[in-house]
Amino acid sequence: MARIALLLQYIGSKFAGWQRQPHQRTVQEELEKVLSDLQQRPVKVIGAGRTDSGVHAAAQVAHFDALGPVPPENWANILNARLPDDIRVRGSAAVPPDWHARFSANSRRYRYTIYTANDPNIFIQPFCWHYYHNPLDTQLMHQALQPLLGEQDLMAFCRANSGRKHSLVRMQDAQCYRDGDFVYVELQAQGFLYGMVRLLVGLLIYVGNGDKTVLEFTRLWQDKCRDQVKYAAPARGLCLLRVGYPVFPFPQHLWFDTQPKFLLTR
Amino acid sequence: MARIALLLQYIGSKFAGWQRQPHQRTVQEELEKVLSDLQQRPVKVIGAGRTDSGVHAAAQVAHFDALGPVPPENWANILNARLPDDIRVRGSAAVPPDWHARFSANSRRYRYTIYTANDPNIFIQPFCWHYYHNPLDTQLMHQALQPLLGEQDLMAFCRANSGRKHSLVRMQDAQCYRDGDFVYVELQAQGFLYGMVRLLVGLLIYVGNGDKTVLEFTRLWQDKCRDQVKYAAPARGLCLLRVGYPVFPFPQHLWFDTQPKFLLTR
Repeated sequence: MARIALLLQYIGSKFAGWQRQPHQRTVQEELEKVLSDLQQRPVKVIGAGRTDSGVHAAAQVAHFDALGPVPPENWANILNARLPDDIRVRGSAAVPPDWHARFSANSRRYRYTIYTANDPNIFIQPFCWHYYHNPLDTQLMHQALQPLLGEQDLMAFCRANSGRKHSLVRMQDAQCYRDGDFVYVELQAQGFLYGMVRLLVGLLIYVGNGDKTVLEFTRLWQDKCRDQVKYAAPARGLCLLRVGYPVFPFPQHLWFDTQPKFLLTR
Repeated sequence: MARIALLLQYIGSKFAGWQRQPHQRTVQEELEKVLSDLQQRPVKVIGAGRTDSGVHAAAQVAHFDALGPVPPENWANILNARLPDDIRVRGSAAVPPDWHARFSANSRRYRYTIYTANDPNIFIQPFCWHYYHNPLDTQLMHQALQPLLGEQDLMAFCRANSGRKHSLVRMQDAQCYRDGDFVYVELQAQGFLYGMVRLLVGLLIYVGNGDKTVLEFTRLWQDKCRDQVKYAAPARGLCLLRVGYPVFPFPQHLWFDTQPKFLLTR
């Protein structure tokens, strides 16, 4: 038995997220279906980040245990020949038997993309929240993110049906910046709560459009006002950008910043 | 009866091109289906460029004749509510009754995108030819395009089953340039031959990778060696970028360069 790590990309639009669920198309299920078929036995695939329905992944990491003589690096091509168009395996590599895609990970980085131009664009639409109602002040949005750094109780940004016992989050990095018509929010933490990034961005937009001050934003989550965080930003704007490990089983060019940004030249 | 011009975007991946064909999903058919249904009579839609199977459009133009009291600018929203996800109407406007999406147009501009990095990327893949075999010399490719400017007989780049009587093309602009991992070929002409851009790019790649000289490329099309132009570049790399008219019925921000480029930051 050899443990194999996979580096994956997927377009989340037509998936009910990563995690296997009855009667839903999920990324985990598509992978397990192909692998179980190839291995002629039930194969379980563990992912680093359980992305939500509609959320994309530029560099998701997963592992499974393989039987047989297939060289570890060949799994990528073998899987790509059988997987649907909206999942691609960028790489496969052997890892130690105690290496775990989820538990060995020490960071997940998500990027949320907001498109602020008036005109919708079919090439951009599936990957962003099209928000053009008010101009967004990204400096204020960035400022509002800074108190989140370090260990915080973020119950305010935890979706109701979460299975987690506590809502402590170790936020390692939090950025908001503008690039032309695009506003990006990038958050990196050891782990995230269920639905957290979308609830956080949904509230942060009110800082950007002037409806809330930076202080109001901060008080809201510090006071755990879960009932006042009502709006989750659309899933299609969110992308799992990368997962960090003490020792990463893939070369950097394969996993570092693999979600392209859009450039509109006028 | 009022003539309405439409400004359209579509992701070509799941279409057998623009033009209506039996038993195939085409953009024209999807539009005519929705319009005929709304108008309760058969409605014909004329497009400016008859894009091939799999080819995208960032700013295709079409027209149809409408009956009834709908304000012209409302057609965009009405259609978007009924059209599938992979077609979007960016604008609708009234045009004079003799205005014709195809015959009034005096230019079409296409962009071909080549992605030259080693690693495939699921976000980029549907919109480019992934060519990483040899480095491409874009200066030579650009140089090879220049003799095409002006009126030329491009029979060498005309697909066999074209219905056109002659193969004269008035090339208005021809560019090849590199931007990071991407190589772009942009061609603008009054009209194009059937399959022409893909055959041209398919041959141009040999200039880029050193297999042919600029002179060999030029002699090949000047001598109308149709049988030596064997390889058409993949459809997914091609996009109808814009259509020109003496008087354009839409504001410039809606139609000028609406295909976003990809930006990969490392």
